[in-house]
Amino acid sequence: MSEKPTVTAALIVIGNEVLSGRTQDANVQFLAVGLNNVGVRLMEARVIADVEDEIVQAINALRAKYDYVFTTGGIGPTHDDITSGAVAKAMGREFGRNAEAEAILRDHYRPQDVTEARLRMADMAEGAELIDNPVSRAPGYRVENVIVMPGVPRIMQAMFDGYKHNLVGGEPMQSVTITVALPEGVMAAPLGQLQQDHDGVEFGSYPFVRHGQVGTCLVARSADEGALDAAADALRAMIGELGGQPMED
Amino acid sequence: MSEKPTVTAALIVIGNEVLSGRTQDANVQFLAVGLNNVGVRLMEARVIADVEDEIVQAINALRAKYDYVFTTGGIGPTHDDITSGAVAKAMGREFGRNAEAEAILRDHYRPQDVTEARLRMADMAEGAELIDNPVSRAPGYRVENVIVMPGVPRIMQAMFDGYKHNLVGGEPMQSVTITVALPEGVMAAPLGQLQQDHDGVEFGSYPFVRHGQVGTCLVARSADEGALDAAADALRAMIGELGGQPMED
Repeated sequence: MSEKPTVTAALIVIGNEVLSGRTQDANVQFLAVGLNNVGVRLMEARVIADVEDEIVQAINALRAKYDYVFTTGGIGPTHDDITSGAVAKAMGREFGRNAEAEAILRDHYRPQDVTEARLRMADMAEGAELIDNPVSRAPGYRVENVIVMPGVPRIMQAMFDGYKHNLVGGEPMQSVTITVALPEGVMAAPLGQLQQDHDGVEFGSYPFVRHGQVGTCLVARSADEGALDAAADALRAMIGELGGQPMED
Repeated sequence: MSEKPTVTAALIVIGNEVLSGRTQDANVQFLAVGLNNVGVRLMEARVIADVEDEIVQAINALRAKYDYVFTTGGIGPTHDDITSGAVAKAMGREFGRNAEAEAILRDHYRPQDVTEARLRMADMAEGAELIDNPVSRAPGYRVENVIVMPGVPRIMQAMFDGYKHNLVGGEPMQSVTITVALPEGVMAAPLGQLQQDHDGVEFGSYPFVRHGQVGTCLVARSADEGALDAAADALRAMIGELGGQPMED
């Protein structure tokens, strides 16, 4: 078994546009995969509105519970961008202009385009460490274990990919997926037994219907490669005993 | 202004498969839109793991705060389907076999296919009111203001569409979207002024880059049609003053 501890994270997606259904969130899935690749497990995600109290409460609930908290959204120049003030309030820090961030913005825009609205993107909690934004320059930042990023997926993704190696992770979870042309109901009992027999492995079962055919994706997940191999073998044996066959995905 | 109150909801997506990144969630957006159409506003969504304590805590936090709480996921026949037990626990109700749900399952499966695992789908909180599942029969249900549905989008959607007219909603939010070839930074100050001037309207601003061109979607939302029309007119006037032009979406 791995000696590394499990390192955990939560994500707060801040944005009325996701809650109104206008926008399909893409940040949960991207960060779930990206975090796992550096050994951090996403344990919870919340989508909340652009409301200061909600943001403050979510940050304080989650930063006490998980190793890292990521936020996406609400750090642009407009009136509905209130994340940074809420982060400072949640963490009991002064809120004001970050000189380094201001210099980045002044360097990026033509002098006549440096508006007070745009400079608001340099307002953040005292002591914030900036995170480079290779796309549109306005930086993200980190305060203690809270990492504040923009909501636009393309920009967030570039920022995360540049920063992720600064995160201290454990062993990444690995997984094996086996797709089988059996309804999950016939596998439920033996699968429950497998779960009992394989410590350190998480078994999941996800039914589907494709082209009129019922099937199930069986997934085993573990940070321990040996345990995962044994689980996958046991899954295949179980399927064989039930007369099922793995399908192409 | 409308006399109807704002009716609110939260959604709890229960599923390790979303948190591992294996599956892209589709339920938040579908329910955001579907709820709004019947006058219910989605205020918050949480994605949590298949862990009983997490489910109990989320249900109790959210059912006290919002008019409705929806859950998706974790009501199938396998060992990782633990939502129903957690709902009963959260609500302090007995957990056991619902005779009506059992009859639906026995009617659906051939006698030799009625397994104990499948009958677990009839275990729910005492007093649950069933919700018809037109696709795969295993019913969803409602207990007080908590509505429990499956996680597979196609099944959840069919169930929701059959049930939604039982929800008591207020006025649906309506919205106007104007896409303009201006960066949001140049609109931030006048847009903040519009927000101050238009009570009961929510203005949002969502920047993008398409084909190398910077632009912004401006969205006004309101349950009051007259206020929304006035807000849209004011947005168009603001864009005109800034020398911008609406773009095709």
